[in-house]
Formats: sequence, structure tokens, C-alpha cells
Amino acid sequence: MIEITRPLARYIVASRLDAMPAQVRHEGVRAFVNSMGCVLGGCRESVIERALAVFEDLSGPPQATVIGWGKRVDAPTAAMLNAMSVFVHSFMDTHLATVAHPAGPPAVALFAMSERQSVKGVDLLHALILGIEVACRLANVIAAAPAKSHVGLSTHGVTNVIGTAVAMGKLLGLDEQQMVWAIGLAVVQAAGIRSGHGSMGGKLVAGHATRCGMLAAMLAAKGFTCSENPLEGAKGYAAVFANPPNLPAAVDRLGEHYEMLANAYKPYPCGIVIHSSIDVCLQLAAEPGFDADAIQSLQLNVHPLSMQLCDRQQPVDRMQALVSVQHWAAVALLFRQAGIAEGSDRVVHDPAVVALRGRITVRADEGMASEAATVTVLFKDGSTQQSHVAQCRGSHARPLTDDDLGVKFRGQANMLLSAAATEDLLGQCWRLQDLDDVGQLAQRFFQGNALSSH
Amino acid sequence: MIEITRPLARYIVASRLDAMPAQVRHEGVRAFVNSMGCVLGGCRESVIERALAVFEDLSGPPQATVIGWGKRVDAPTAAMLNAMSVFVHSFMDTHLATVAHPAGPPAVALFAMSERQSVKGVDLLHALILGIEVACRLANVIAAAPAKSHVGLSTHGVTNVIGTAVAMGKLLGLDEQQMVWAIGLAVVQAAGIRSGHGSMGGKLVAGHATRCGMLAAMLAAKGFTCSENPLEGAKGYAAVFANPPNLPAAVDRLGEHYEMLANAYKPYPCGIVIHSSIDVCLQLAAEPGFDADAIQSLQLNVHPLSMQLCDRQQPVDRMQALVSVQHWAAVALLFRQAGIAEGSDRVVHDPAVVALRGRITVRADEGMASEAATVTVLFKDGSTQQSHVAQCRGSHARPLTDDDLGVKFRGQANMLLSAAATEDLLGQCWRLQDLDDVGQLAQRFFQGNALSSH
Repeated sequence: MIEITRPLARYIVASRLDAMPAQVRHEGVRAFVNSMGCVLGGCRESVIERALAVFEDLSGPPQATVIGWGKRVDAPTAAMLNAMSVFVHSFMDTHLATVAHPAGPPAVALFAMSERQSVKGVDLLHALILGIEVACRLANVIAAAPAKSHVGLSTHGVTNVIGTAVAMGKLLGLDEQQMVWAIGLAVVQAAGIRSGHGSMGGKLVAGHATRCGMLAAMLAAKGFTCSENPLEGAKGYAAVFANPPNLPAAVDRLGEHYEMLANAYKPYPCGIVIHSSIDVCLQLAAEPGFDADAIQSLQLNVHPLSMQLCDRQQPVDRMQALVSVQHWAAVALLFRQAGIAEGSDRVVHDPAVVALRGRITVRADEGMASEAATVTVLFKDGSTQQSHVAQCRGSHARPLTDDDLGVKFRGQANMLLSAAATEDLLGQCWRLQDLDDVGQLAQRFFQGNALSSH
Repeated sequence: MIEITRPLARYIVASRLDAMPAQVRHEGVRAFVNSMGCVLGGCRESVIERALAVFEDLSGPPQATVIGWGKRVDAPTAAMLNAMSVFVHSFMDTHLATVAHPAGPPAVALFAMSERQSVKGVDLLHALILGIEVACRLANVIAAAPAKSHVGLSTHGVTNVIGTAVAMGKLLGLDEQQMVWAIGLAVVQAAGIRSGHGSMGGKLVAGHATRCGMLAAMLAAKGFTCSENPLEGAKGYAAVFANPPNLPAAVDRLGEHYEMLANAYKPYPCGIVIHSSIDVCLQLAAEPGFDADAIQSLQLNVHPLSMQLCDRQQPVDRMQALVSVQHWAAVALLFRQAGIAEGSDRVVHDPAVVALRGRITVRADEGMASEAATVTVLFKDGSTQQSHVAQCRGSHARPLTDDDLGVKFRGQANMLLSAAATEDLLGQCWRLQDLDDVGQLAQRFFQGNALSSH
């Protein structure tokens, strides 16, 4: 048995931010900017309102902000709700090799803690990088070739709880043994099944991982024990969730190779495996003379995972539309854009969208890369048109630039805040490393959102 | 695909206590008595103290009693801590076919709710029976022949969250659609990996299931949605946790067959798969002239699962001893009893116990039934002695009687309470069906324990 848990714990405890390459630190800031923007974009949706209706009554002391609601609740509850906001529009980040989404949960967990205790920007950044790194590596253990997990298992659910635990553990200053326990306590709470996709339940997975990960670290800090080999042991994370696991992926070249650099940011607010279909439809729709009204039928050829996770011909609401490849192909062709508005209930029920979705056939193509897609349109006059995208926006070959991330942040923050407040928050997020006290940034989020909620 | 989720939801919503056989209702009372006794027996252990150190600071309004501590916290937090108390000594109930432990989590969840809102004894009983029934059936889906789950998956973790959700849902009066959502919201939080066994983390699994199950029902009551087929769908509970699942077990003869009648109560405070080894060693030790000091070595032949889950030659502390077959065989031979005292740290480190554990060989025997065991002792003088138990105490053939459950309750309650207070509580628990307001019983638990904590 290759050891994983203790080497990871040792690495996290010993890690120093100034030993990390500038590229890694900058990627951590990008992950933070992207996550906080997604909180702003998602926070006012009814899924958060309904969760708040339960959790506000159960909250402990007002320690941290429920962003968008002008309310303070205890830190794990705030982080849980803010994590759900990150995931609301499926607009977050994605570790492409595994379809994990590692940044949001540790980002909002650390952010909530910055309101409970004084936290420097560099310390938040450092813990965040470690949390993302561990979650990406553990996703590779169970879900990247040759490791294989059940397609119904939510990779982000079972990895984010651990990523959040180690990020919190770093912030709390756990020692090596406590960090081993924190990882174990996260493992025993690791949950997430994809059956909730397309409903509010799919968002709960992210909130659950965040809260449970925070608690794992807080319990370990109080001497609440766990076992020695929760990741690699015979009855542990890798054995239960993967078949077979790729254990070396967890610890190979720790501190040299940064798997978090393979984490990408979504250009479109929907399931990542839909993005290549959106790109190819946008490309087709941009061709001269293209007329969506003239479509008789169309076929999408996609990577098999796109079919397995997102084959929903007629989503009944916006939650289902988030994981419907047919929906996003249709709106890309009809409206030539694919933003949060195109995922709204109004658009989901638009008769033209319903009709076009009904004319789409999706084929799983074993030879198609996950970032590629082909669309073939048959027009009513009998003519056909085909388009192919090899590498969609947001893929490793075409990552979002810092400017793209700024545009994405503004587009979401503007739904809530004035342009001036948006620019102020965005600027502060980019300057994370310079902040002496992240709690002051949290205060601005609180004030901005308190205003907007009236 | 056979439908499970909606038929279960429909059954639970339509269920009436007066349509249930008297035997089923009485079994529900027995499960309640056993669970509350185990809370009293486990509540003062350090695992609860350390959890309380985290959760008390995060608690919402004081709604329900943390039994044994004279403290009130919000209801889900109280239930979570009390559920961990049930599991502390591994002395709870067991659904023998699956090694699930279905009664404690819904029992303490409903009990905590009785302090938050007025709850009649019959309503608690009814909801409890349904919660146990659903958990047992869902355990059969993944873990009883021919269904098979990974040995590292904690059956009680992933089933209790759902059992607790439906019990809470019944108490809250959810309609059928809300009950479907509650089941789904429990499924997406379903967690538990056995790597935490032998540490405090193993107890967290029970607390996590309890809290998350309660929240699932509370969220569903507020219109927080989930999917339609979380149990039977392609990316659902059965598909992810079993290979292959036994789907019919969930719904066969609902309302006629009661799987909860197959739930048993533990006579010994340790892993259920150890019990036959304890019985056979107690039997051997009771033979005339038996001398434990004269043992050279001994061999236990046990069911393979006993070996897989509880092979721990030298446990380092009482948490590990709970899942060490060698420990309990040794104490049974040395002390001729196997109660909570024999699992204490003092006994775990007793040199005579350490020495005898070291002389034990455990063999997994494919032909051995789970309720059977054989011990073969080689004495220093070269003589040998063998003993065999076909059906241990607590098995289906030899269930604990109501009197046995009373003895078990008293033995645990007496650690905290006066004899008079113990008799009072025990009597009230047996009269559950007659209680107009369970909250008054909870008040007695609070007072009794507040006194004891000084």
C-alpha cells in the first residue's frame, strides 16, 4: 500500500506560500476571483432562499455573511450557503480531467472564517491553493484515467469535503496528526450522488461538502480523532470510491507539480460537458446566412460523458436546463449567446426553444475528445451544414484570461450591485495578496448586498 | 427500472399506526428503549465532549437536550450528538442481515424534535417504526444477498440518513412529493466509510447521518426540491452503492412484511460480528476447571466478515477495542463477562489482557454462519479444549427479551443516574405509546442529566 494521507498532511503543514511559484499564487487569486463572482451571480436564486429558510433558524452566533442577503449566521452555515451560491448556475471552475469543481468550497469556507477571526490575504490564498491542490489530486485518484469511479458519484462532492478540510486545517494551524484526522473526518462525511443533478438537491452537495469539511478541521483541532489511512486504507476513500484507484496521483511530485494549474474556469453557466456543444453551435450560428428558423433537425456528436451526464431533451425548469445539452445547443443557435439569461425559466419555456430542443439528436461518440463536438444541421430545404470544434473555450488550450474572468465577475456582480461597487469588489479580490484583513473585504460584501436586498 | 422512491414515499405518507400489528408497535417501543439506554450509556465519553466543544459554539437556539450534559442546543445538533452517544460503545441495535444499525438516529432525531414542538408518543413511535423499516429495507438493497456493497462502505451511514429523513418527514407531515424530495436530499448527503472504525471518526458517521437526515426533511418541507428517482435511478443510491442492488427488497410487500422485526439488540458493547466469539469464549470459560492462566494459545474460527471488520490483535485504545475480536475474546476468557467495563481503556491496557490477545489466532471460515463461532484452546500442559456456539445471544434465534433490554438500560443509566431516576425513565420509555407529550420525558432526561453533570 502506497501511503497518501500522512504525506499529504505533512506537505500541507510544512507548506510555505513563498516557496510556491508565482504562477501558482496567481492561479489561486484567479480561483478566488472566479469563486466570489459566482457567489454574487448565484446568491439571489430561490434555492438559496429556501435553504436559508431552514438554516437561519438553526444558526449559531452571527459570525459570517450570507452573501446577497444582508444576514450573518455562524461561519459553517454561511460558507455552506455561499458554496451553494457558487454552484447555482453551474458557472464555477472545473478540473477538466475529472469534472471536479475544487475552488468554491474552500474559498467560501476561508472567506467565512475571515469574518470570525482575523485572516491575512496571503494566508487565505495559501490555504486556498492547498485545498484546491488536494481536491484535484484526490479527484485524479478516483476519476482520471486509469482510475474509474461510478458515473453516479459526484466527484466534487467527495473531493471538496477533503479539500475544504485541509484548507481550513491550514488556516487553523493544525499539526500533522490533527491534519491526518481532519482528512479522515472529511472522508467519513464524503457524500454526493449525481441523482440530485437538475434539482436543488444537486446544489446541496456543494454546501454539504463545504460545511462538513470545515467541521472536520474544527473537530480535529479539538482532538477529535480519526484513523491513520482514511484515503489509502482497505476501507477508505480510494477503495470505496474508485475501481481501481490511482493512488500515486495523490502524492506524485508534491510541491513540484501543481495539479491546481489544470483547474479551468467556465465560460458558460452550465455543466462543463455541454461547453463544446455550445461552442460548436455558436460557431455555426455565426456563419453568414445561418437561419435557425430553417432548421429541420440537427445532430450533435459529443464525448460519451456529455451524453451520460447531460442528455435531457426537454428540461422542465432552469435547474434541469443547467444539465441539458439540448437546451444549450438550442439557445446558442437561436440567441447566439449562452449566459445566465439563456438559462432562465423564461427561456427554458420559450416555445421556440422548446421546439428546437425537440429536433436535436445527441450521439455519444467514443472518438470525440471531451473538449470537442460536431454539429450537423439538416435544413427544411434539404441542405445540410456541419461545424466542428476541436477545443472549446475554457479548455486547456483556450483558458479564460484574467480579462475574461473580470468580464465574468462583472456580469454576475452587476445583477446585484452598482457598477462602482462591482469594480471596487473586483479590484479588492484581485489584490487578495495585499489584504491585511480579509474580513474588511467581507464587510464590503455584506454592505453591498445588504443594500441590494432592500 | 423498478420504482422505489415514490412507492416508499406514498407508503410512508399514507401509513397509519393503528393499521400496524401489535408486534410491530411493540418492536418500535423496544427500539426506543434500547436507543435511549444507549444514549445514557455513551453520553459522558470524551468523544462527545470533544464534539460538544465544537458544536456548542455553533449551535442555534436552545431547542433540545444534549443528554448527559445539562445543555440545550438546536434540535439537529442535539440529535447529532445524542446519536453519537448511541453509538459510543457499539452497544446499539443491529439489522443482522446487513450489519446496519437503524434505530438510534431516527429515535434521537424525533426525540429532539419533541422538545421543539409538541409530539405525542404514538406519533413518535409511528415515525420511528417507518424510519427503521425504510433503513432496513434500503440496507437489504445494497448489502443483503444477493446485493453486495463495498466492505468499506458503512451500511448504517448511508441508510440511516434516509431512515431519519423519512421519520422526520412523517413527523413534519410532508406530502408525497415532499417525501420524495426528502429521500433524495438524504441520498445526496449519504456518507460513511469504515476507515473511521476504531476511532472517534467512526462515531461521527452516526451523528452526520442523523443531522443530515433531519435537514433533508426540513428542507423538503420548505420546498427545497430534489430529483424523482434518487434511490433507483441510474445515478442514484442503489447504482452507486451496490453491485448489483436488490431493488425489490425496498418495496416488496410494503405494509405486510416488516423488515424492522429483523432488527436485533446487542447484548455486548462492541461490533456485532464479535458477539459469537464472545459467546463461545464465555461458554468455554464457564466449563468446570477452566483456567485462563494456563492458556498457551487459542484459535477462533469465525465468519469472514468478522475477520474483515474486526481483526485487531492489539487495539491501542478503547475505540479500537470496540472493533477488536481478539480483545473481546480475551476479556471473556479472563473476566467471564463482556460489558462496558471490559471495553475501558484500563482493561485494554491490562497486561494480562494484552498477553492473552497476543496468543489469539483468528481464522476466517467460509463455512461458519455469522452468528456462530468455534474456539480451540491449547493449554500449556499440551491439552486442548474446544467449544462451539451455533447461535449467539442477540441472534434471531436468541433475541434479547424485554427483561434483557431493561437490564441493559439500567446498566447504562446507572452510570449517570440514581436507581430511582433510572426506573422512572425506563418506565416512561416503555410507556411511550401513552405519552401525550414526549417533551415532558425529554425534560426528565434533561433534569436527570443536568444533576449528574455536576
